[in-house]
Amino acid sequence: MTGAAPEASHIRMKHSLAALLLAAATSLAAQTPSIPIPPPDPKIVALREAALKDDYAWDIVEGLTTEVGPRLAGTEAEARARAWAVAKLRSLGFANVRVETFDMPVWVRGEEKAWITAPFPQPLVVAALGNSGATPPQGIEAELIGFDTLAALEAAPEAVVRGRIVFVSHAMPRSQDGSSYGAFIGPRARGPSIASRKGAAAIVIRSIGTDYHRNPHTGVMTFEPGVQPIPAGALSIPDAEQVQRILKRGQPVRMRLLMTPRNIGTRQSGNVIAEVPGRDPNAPILLVAGHLDSWDLGTGAVDDASGVAIAAAAAKRVMDAGRPLRTIRIVWFGAEEVGLFGGLDYRARHGKEPYHAIAESDFGVGRVWKVDSKLGKVREAEARALQAALAPLGIVPGSLELADGSDIGPMLADGVPGVTLAQDGTRYFDLHHTPDDTLDKVDPESLRQNVAAWTTMLAVLSGGLEPHPKRRPRR
Amino acid sequence: MTGAAPEASHIRMKHSLAALLLAAATSLAAQTPSIPIPPPDPKIVALREAALKDDYAWDIVEGLTTEVGPRLAGTEAEARARAWAVAKLRSLGFANVRVETFDMPVWVRGEEKAWITAPFPQPLVVAALGNSGATPPQGIEAELIGFDTLAALEAAPEAVVRGRIVFVSHAMPRSQDGSSYGAFIGPRARGPSIASRKGAAAIVIRSIGTDYHRNPHTGVMTFEPGVQPIPAGALSIPDAEQVQRILKRGQPVRMRLLMTPRNIGTRQSGNVIAEVPGRDPNAPILLVAGHLDSWDLGTGAVDDASGVAIAAAAAKRVMDAGRPLRTIRIVWFGAEEVGLFGGLDYRARHGKEPYHAIAESDFGVGRVWKVDSKLGKVREAEARALQAALAPLGIVPGSLELADGSDIGPMLADGVPGVTLAQDGTRYFDLHHTPDDTLDKVDPESLRQNVAAWTTMLAVLSGGLEPHPKRRPRR
Repeated sequence: MTGAAPEASHIRMKHSLAALLLAAATSLAAQTPSIPIPPPDPKIVALREAALKDDYAWDIVEGLTTEVGPRLAGTEAEARARAWAVAKLRSLGFANVRVETFDMPVWVRGEEKAWITAPFPQPLVVAALGNSGATPPQGIEAELIGFDTLAALEAAPEAVVRGRIVFVSHAMPRSQDGSSYGAFIGPRARGPSIASRKGAAAIVIRSIGTDYHRNPHTGVMTFEPGVQPIPAGALSIPDAEQVQRILKRGQPVRMRLLMTPRNIGTRQSGNVIAEVPGRDPNAPILLVAGHLDSWDLGTGAVDDASGVAIAAAAAKRVMDAGRPLRTIRIVWFGAEEVGLFGGLDYRARHGKEPYHAIAESDFGVGRVWKVDSKLGKVREAEARALQAALAPLGIVPGSLELADGSDIGPMLADGVPGVTLAQDGTRYFDLHHTPDDTLDKVDPESLRQNVAAWTTMLAVLSGGLEPHPKRRPRR
Repeated sequence: MTGAAPEASHIRMKHSLAALLLAAATSLAAQTPSIPIPPPDPKIVALREAALKDDYAWDIVEGLTTEVGPRLAGTEAEARARAWAVAKLRSLGFANVRVETFDMPVWVRGEEKAWITAPFPQPLVVAALGNSGATPPQGIEAELIGFDTLAALEAAPEAVVRGRIVFVSHAMPRSQDGSSYGAFIGPRARGPSIASRKGAAAIVIRSIGTDYHRNPHTGVMTFEPGVQPIPAGALSIPDAEQVQRILKRGQPVRMRLLMTPRNIGTRQSGNVIAEVPGRDPNAPILLVAGHLDSWDLGTGAVDDASGVAIAAAAAKRVMDAGRPLRTIRIVWFGAEEVGLFGGLDYRARHGKEPYHAIAESDFGVGRVWKVDSKLGKVREAEARALQAALAPLGIVPGSLELADGSDIGPMLADGVPGVTLAQDGTRYFDLHHTPDDTLDKVDPESLRQNVAAWTTMLAVLSGGLEPHPKRRPRR
């Protein structure tokens, strides 16, 4: 997930605040529903249990991360990912597999190095933030000025910032629902613009993350209109704490920074779409999604090869079990990380079509622990049935009035009904946007629990599955 | 620790094998000692308990890693570390603080990058091994050939290796005593020479380590006499497993490798020495040590700022408690990582002096869990008293016929009496020689337990502490 789009981060923040208030009431309500819930459909139970042995999702995550690797939006690597995706989705038997392309501006990483040059010379590990400005090829050197919070930077007089390299050290805590990300993303999202406005030579922030490894967390930021781009980087968390210790010694601290990313102009990205055709072509559809692009530092196993894999594996399992009433549409969005370009392009083309529900998996591979939905008051029975069907997977009933997602965020904000299978994100920000987001971080059992949850959700919302006419089951 | 010197790794390997055989017998013997052990000396008990609140060691680790940072042997950074060390040891009140310099050949890292170019183009994370040869500035590209073990590389015909880049994937398991390091270091220690002899263009190995982060483990290797240096690097463990997956697809795999380290000729390194003068200048001395240099990728917090800190903090605590019979000599060795140059220089100058015991802390900050010693049969009572005094720290009695250490390894091999306060190394090789060896990895409580163990050891072996004449206690 990018988290940088206003829609997505606002929704996540509201979500978490509301969650605190609603938790008790909602869970009580779930235990004493006002609407009778039908007994579990044996077909759905069987699908759910079988999905706990799923291998489709692992095959997709392993294949995409191994055979494509990092796939930055708008690059040839993302184009290879689309070709891989089309081949994979076709081989799984989905219908209407296609790519919808769109153009977008592309920023690519260059060299990136940082050093403390005084008083204690030593190298640091840094990564440019997406859309960072560049230093000259020989780098820059300037005094470093530290701020504990973004508010402190905002309050600082121009005179103390001008010509210096700004460092913001505020530290994101862990949270299960990821709400701390939205709450602490300020230095990345807004810090560069604030620093530039005050005449800073550059800005480096403590990575927005929760690990202690020498792997910086990149992520997109956008300079506000009229603001001069400056070099903007993230230090790994051990490096950020090292800089804090050095600053605490009280001597003037100087940093050298070399960062040579560049904007390479307009390039093509695209969304990869596939379908399980429903029996009723006029029934509002189910959309399940993830995003195909990744940041360039890792192979995007967790963000978001796992998400596309979970969505597709669930659709595959339902498709093989029978013919749903509603069409299930899988969308593997392009260019999520760098600004939700794929989600916005999809919404422009397809936002007005009728949807029964939309859902996106883009929060790693932690176990699904809660189901939130926003299907509308008249569909409360359906929402309750969904909660009941998911409960055996250890999933607690959440809100009936909330849903979120990254690429689908704008459509949710438009009022499209949505479901969120909330994953445990306690350790998600150890890896998020770092070189460490690699296949070894994917727990196969947790991935299977996700597939089981998504399979169950599709089965419940599908309008019922009927046997495939005149052909043998696919496996 | 370097582990590459034949002495050290052989000793550790023998140690671990012998440990298995001796464990039961030794621990039984410890429970039923044939020699009566005197009741605990209250002065020693008080020293041990006070050391569990030690801050001296943390101050040294924090200071050295912050104010110097990485300190590769023979570089100006190591020279700054020596200056820092002299000032710190003097400020702690030690006597005879001095540097003994020596010359050594110095190898420094350059650029290092690797990519799979076919069939699935993607970047990899690599670090050159110490003494690696260099590629041309534009890098090399060649077919990659994989071997599961060093034995498989050794058995391979020249024809399949010549002109290719060799990849050895064998994987080191965890072990509490670090014995798996000695057993699995072959690809780093010997792989480059074997590959070069067979005409390989370069070699990359799976890092000799136990973590799953994108941080390669460097470490020294030496080309055998007459062997042409070739580029030799370590892939991070996630990268190594990625390459294995790519190779398993069965298509020809090509790698591009850019690695530009260089030998910069002879430079100066040195050992920093300080003393707690004993009441009897003729009594055989106690030597406690660690090494001051570190690899260049991290700040060497665990390897081995912690070791020098533990040794010095223990000596400081004993010094402040009273005047020992024997002189305690602290040695912070230079140039350990790159070939035990400091240890060998010290041995050449001081190896023939009389030592009551020598000990080195160079295995991280894991808790001391066992005490081994080799003081000789006639000093069994002293060894048993040491075991008894350490037991309340959760330290089990180990062998009476084994001691090991890195810089002190050659002197131990010469027959000098030694003590090993064996640390739990289960997670040591997650960090060893990687960028991740930083201060945040040091657990203050574990560091204190180490200081308590070393303080106790010095107190037991010191020949008794007498009050400082005519001066106030130092604190």
